[in-house]
Amino acid sequence: MTRQSQSLKLHPDRLFSSDPAVVSIARELYNEIKDLPIVSPHGHTDPKWFNENPHFGNATELFIKPDHYVFRMLYSQGIDLTTLGIPEHGLEGDMARSKSVDPKKAWQIFADNYYLFAGTPSGYWLDAVFSDVFGFTEKLNSDNAQDYYDKITAELATDAYKPHALMDRFNIELIATTEGALDSLEHHRGMAGTNMAKRVITTFRPDDVVDASREDFIDNVAKLGELTEQDTTTWQGYLDAIRIRREYFKKEGRATATDHGHPSAITADLSLSECEALFEKCRTGHANEQEQELFRGQMLTELAGMSIEDGLVMQIHPGAHRNHNQPIFNQFGRDKGADIPSQTEYVNALKPLLSKYGNHPKLKIILFTLDETTYSRELAPLAGHYPSLKLGPAWWFHDSPAGMLRFRQQTTETAGFYNTVGFNDDTRAFLSIPARHDVARRVDCRYLAELVANHQISIESAHELAYQLTYGLVKKAYNL
Amino acid sequence: MTRQSQSLKLHPDRLFSSDPAVVSIARELYNEIKDLPIVSPHGHTDPKWFNENPHFGNATELFIKPDHYVFRMLYSQGIDLTTLGIPEHGLEGDMARSKSVDPKKAWQIFADNYYLFAGTPSGYWLDAVFSDVFGFTEKLNSDNAQDYYDKITAELATDAYKPHALMDRFNIELIATTEGALDSLEHHRGMAGTNMAKRVITTFRPDDVVDASREDFIDNVAKLGELTEQDTTTWQGYLDAIRIRREYFKKEGRATATDHGHPSAITADLSLSECEALFEKCRTGHANEQEQELFRGQMLTELAGMSIEDGLVMQIHPGAHRNHNQPIFNQFGRDKGADIPSQTEYVNALKPLLSKYGNHPKLKIILFTLDETTYSRELAPLAGHYPSLKLGPAWWFHDSPAGMLRFRQQTTETAGFYNTVGFNDDTRAFLSIPARHDVARRVDCRYLAELVANHQISIESAHELAYQLTYGLVKKAYNL
Amino acid sequence: MTRQSQSLKLHPDRLFSSDPAVVSIARELYNEIKDLPIVSPHGHTDPKWFNENPHFGNATELFIKPDHYVFRMLYSQGIDLTTLGIPEHGLEGDMARSKSVDPKKAWQIFADNYYLFAGTPSGYWLDAVFSDVFGFTEKLNSDNAQDYYDKITAELATDAYKPHALMDRFNIELIATTEGALDSLEHHRGMAGTNMAKRVITTFRPDDVVDASREDFIDNVAKLGELTEQDTTTWQGYLDAIRIRREYFKKEGRATATDHGHPSAITADLSLSECEALFEKCRTGHANEQEQELFRGQMLTELAGMSIEDGLVMQIHPGAHRNHNQPIFNQFGRDKGADIPSQTEYVNALKPLLSKYGNHPKLKIILFTLDETTYSRELAPLAGHYPSLKLGPAWWFHDSPAGMLRFRQQTTETAGFYNTVGFNDDTRAFLSIPARHDVARRVDCRYLAELVANHQISIESAHELAYQLTYGLVKKAYNL
Repeated sequence: MTRQSQSLKLHPDRLFSSDPAVVSIARELYNEIKDLPIVSPHGHTDPKWFNENPHFGNATELFIKPDHYVFRMLYSQGIDLTTLGIPEHGLEGDMARSKSVDPKKAWQIFADNYYLFAGTPSGYWLDAVFSDVFGFTEKLNSDNAQDYYDKITAELATDAYKPHALMDRFNIELIATTEGALDSLEHHRGMAGTNMAKRVITTFRPDDVVDASREDFIDNVAKLGELTEQDTTTWQGYLDAIRIRREYFKKEGRATATDHGHPSAITADLSLSECEALFEKCRTGHANEQEQELFRGQMLTELAGMSIEDGLVMQIHPGAHRNHNQPIFNQFGRDKGADIPSQTEYVNALKPLLSKYGNHPKLKIILFTLDETTYSRELAPLAGHYPSLKLGPAWWFHDSPAGMLRFRQQTTETAGFYNTVGFNDDTRAFLSIPARHDVARRVDCRYLAELVANHQISIESAHELAYQLTYGLVKKAYNL
Repeated sequence: MTRQSQSLKLHPDRLFSSDPAVVSIARELYNEIKDLPIVSPHGHTDPKWFNENPHFGNATELFIKPDHYVFRMLYSQGIDLTTLGIPEHGLEGDMARSKSVDPKKAWQIFADNYYLFAGTPSGYWLDAVFSDVFGFTEKLNSDNAQDYYDKITAELATDAYKPHALMDRFNIELIATTEGALDSLEHHRGMAGTNMAKRVITTFRPDDVVDASREDFIDNVAKLGELTEQDTTTWQGYLDAIRIRREYFKKEGRATATDHGHPSAITADLSLSECEALFEKCRTGHANEQEQELFRGQMLTELAGMSIEDGLVMQIHPGAHRNHNQPIFNQFGRDKGADIPSQTEYVNALKPLLSKYGNHPKLKIILFTLDETTYSRELAPLAGHYPSLKLGPAWWFHDSPAGMLRFRQQTTETAGFYNTVGFNDDTRAFLSIPARHDVARRVDCRYLAELVANHQISIESAHELAYQLTYGLVKKAYNL
Repeated sequence: MTRQSQSLKLHPDRLFSSDPAVVSIARELYNEIKDLPIVSPHGHTDPKWFNENPHFGNATELFIKPDHYVFRMLYSQGIDLTTLGIPEHGLEGDMARSKSVDPKKAWQIFADNYYLFAGTPSGYWLDAVFSDVFGFTEKLNSDNAQDYYDKITAELATDAYKPHALMDRFNIELIATTEGALDSLEHHRGMAGTNMAKRVITTFRPDDVVDASREDFIDNVAKLGELTEQDTTTWQGYLDAIRIRREYFKKEGRATATDHGHPSAITADLSLSECEALFEKCRTGHANEQEQELFRGQMLTELAGMSIEDGLVMQIHPGAHRNHNQPIFNQFGRDKGADIPSQTEYVNALKPLLSKYGNHPKLKIILFTLDETTYSRELAPLAGHYPSLKLGPAWWFHDSPAGMLRFRQQTTETAGFYNTVGFNDDTRAFLSIPARHDVARRVDCRYLAELVANHQISIESAHELAYQLTYGLVKKAYNL
């Protein structure tokens, strides 16, 4: 469908609400914090970019293929993923190439359907990147699709669009990547001694050696043993091996945090003999689903204990039903836009961990959710009491203007602002990072402006809070 | 309680918010779409009206007795249903007549308590009907109750208030009724060849032959066999009989859709032998509650398969706890305002069906909910991925200004606009249809206006979206 | 952390929104109702205050030690409760005194961290008390902490700050305290014949003799028998004893209501022999958790039956996971900010009670929730149908500007206004009572003003509703 041409011009007051009283306060607050450096303590960019500073590829490679927000929307409207160049699972080499699509054709499909993103955060981020990073002044449409493609692809070939140049242009003070427990941290080690080392750090994400429901769990535990020279056939050896990897991530990757992406927030506090027996079942492939869940739960408690030992901040991201679409998983593999949130319970789930460690002054746990009903009911009350708990920002599907506003509206009155930790972009889409942080800054300023305009907080408090929400709290929460 | 007289005058900017910036954009959008024809793809009007074009009865018959929104509110304030003329279950003929109440007295009770509806959608719809359809200029109250009654009843006796005249006056392009699987479609057949046939269609709702928890299920399955000349004592014969009825509904009732009102969204994908055994248990009255649930779940999957075969769009309306008030059910029967929503889970519930058919290009499923927590958590993510899934509009208790706004606010950022299907009035209250569609149009224009005023979408996109939400998407979604 | 000085001046239009159209209507409505007397039908003030009219203690005793909203926030930021003077459990006499802290030091910690309360209802209430009750014009901070302490403590020593004087100053027409079933009502009896007797009443809260999971349940049931001279080793004797205590609370404490703080909303309707057997198990300490839950559920139904007999209004406050933090409970005891809401189900839970008594014209049940998801999904539909059910106001964590607004936004369209019961302050913080009622009045006026500005209700209706929400409904609902 060809649609009329629209100009692309980001309004300076965007997302500040339509109320002039709120807009003027929001603008005042925003102007004070908009140029603060970006601190990105949780995300999924590729460390190779920062170590090797390569050119990015073409427009399709950059904007469509890696962005599950983009192709999930296209797929929902009946567009075959293969026409977008999404590689099929298990196809390698010649076979993958023979099925590869012309990236210009994929881009045209994207442009033809760009109207689908109206009102979505993806649409907002993409417009911002097209406008601010590439200087387009007409919105992407069917007619200008190839011009867009050519201009983007040409720019990407210049030095100004290489990762290091963009790090400076985007004013990124620090960015954390995320690596599995067995990762060599090759690229993080490669940056050692360079200027990048101060700006790029890793995060320890041990799901691969903790989640016994994974097909590769048994292998991974064996590899963990080899890497660390520990006997990971025993519970104690396994725990020690994880400790060694945490130290490795701190030393070689400058990690300050861990991350845990479990299906639920279940934790457990079993006796030593129960732990040993459960680990043995998991390690030998004899654990059923419930036992695998219990093991993940026990490991969250163990990992919290390790955080007290070594000071790594713990992030818990529960509640995604991964790979819900079985045929899509079979054909294309993981991360194809088919992860669906599900109800998540925290109050009972976290009790074992919290009873054991929740009052420890050295523990910091940052909680995330995909279930917004828990904001006011469970998470704000928990974070408004336990000294170890802080609330991560609106996550994933809720990392959007209305989603972020709901987060503040539903957590602030019980948890306050100081039990939150600033913004996470959580993205692999490097070029969208400034736009994502900008949305968060704008929405926070709008929320604060509403409180000021409603005479709930003073303008002086709002200024201080705008700084804290943008820069102060994230540095403190992640020990940066 | 007698209250002061209030004028009844619908403000032209009603529901457009109080913010002048939003109001002016909303008004611009609304003016473009307010006169588009009404397409009503899901509702419960009586096909007899369209076939026989009778006069409606008196004011009480029209506005109180069939409207469970109205008498549930009155009942909640201690007003006995019998005083409103609600007929008791099982009372027929002389006995019912002897208990019948003077409709003027029932109307007076309604008028005396009309203040209870302040801020409710019923109050809004009723005011709109009284003002726009009957021309009243004073709000209904105790003093003018009998004038209201007399004027309405007199108007209803005129030709201008017969169904065909109102269809034209209301600019209804198309309306779908809903009939059970065993219905003869007498009235839909009666319209064949007339002008009405193009404007009135049925919907196939087979709950009566699918829900084995119903007292009449066994009888219904037997009747299904007789009607279709199939052996419905076998699983295959039963399925074939349903297929035959679907064809009948398409041919004789011009159906384009089916509807399924199950207690939950559970689906199943059992083996053939499991299906046969489960059906046998259900058919012979030996299934327990869990098996009845499993059978409904299996049938949703079977019916999705049939939709792929015959192209009927599938509507799923789960989550009502029907007839919660046992004494009221015993005395008055079904649909007496005692249906209460309950928590509804979709992610796991729909997985069996979606794994089997969710990626099929010929399947269209429209999902509804009474559990608003699922908007952002489950439904928008599902519809924003699966090509077969679309989101039905805010339903029943949520078909209200704030309810519709929450629907848009909580689904748009993840599912976009194009995975939604326009408005359903879902009503048996024929005279309120224009008011209901008007509320939806106003709320959608307001939502779009807020996005424009907040610089999130362009005014050009807003115009196109206003058209799509009012007219384009419903025609496409329901194959009209 | 020392922060800049801020003036403390409550804006006359606070909480009326930032929209000038809404503000001007809200102000008009508020001006009509702001001086109506306070009716406080549910709370936790100490009846001794009203009977003996003592001086309150120092600032720390008044504002920090009894207020779990205050110290939960401080504790969440790592401040040790003992430094705030929170007494440890089980420490009495010398030992408690030896661990007691200087109240001025505790006050300084509170002042140093007062910025944490920005945007929270506690911050709002405290500011209002400091400004309106004590006349401070600078916001509490590190520098003025001791001035605050000294001035408050000095004022508290004057007659103008004794309970009776404050009752008049605050224009409290009536306040209800809450006492356990075994309470002697010494102070309520003490007020008999005085002016206070008309203004201070008790509420019958029998959790101590109904909740068999309490450590003191068995003792309590025995004491109940002694007090009433009934044989509480039998089911019938136990029920009769409760009946006798209810009469005692009506006669000696002028009670018009009961209150029930159960973990869930479960009710039951067992046969007599089942009841007898279950009671026997509970009474002898042999009931497991499920049986204890069932017993509480059966008792809610029994108590509803007694309400029909004696006319006491029933309040149900379900859904708190009490004392979630085990180490804090062990060290400090109950009510230390570690109660966390959890998911609460009403539709199935209440069915046994409602099937038995829900249509009885003499029964009034006021339902509360900590799970906001139930507002639109369960509670508004239930209260919008059952004549016995009314909705209590936004409770506890949700007794806040945004929380109250969500309550209205999510219940009004289905339940209307007249199935709600006005405001409860639910507090033991006597000095904050005017501020709490004022927040409720302001938020209700704002909500009504939005409906008027959006042309959903008339200004005449809004005036009447403002009166009802402030004064009319509470008097009616609680039989005052």
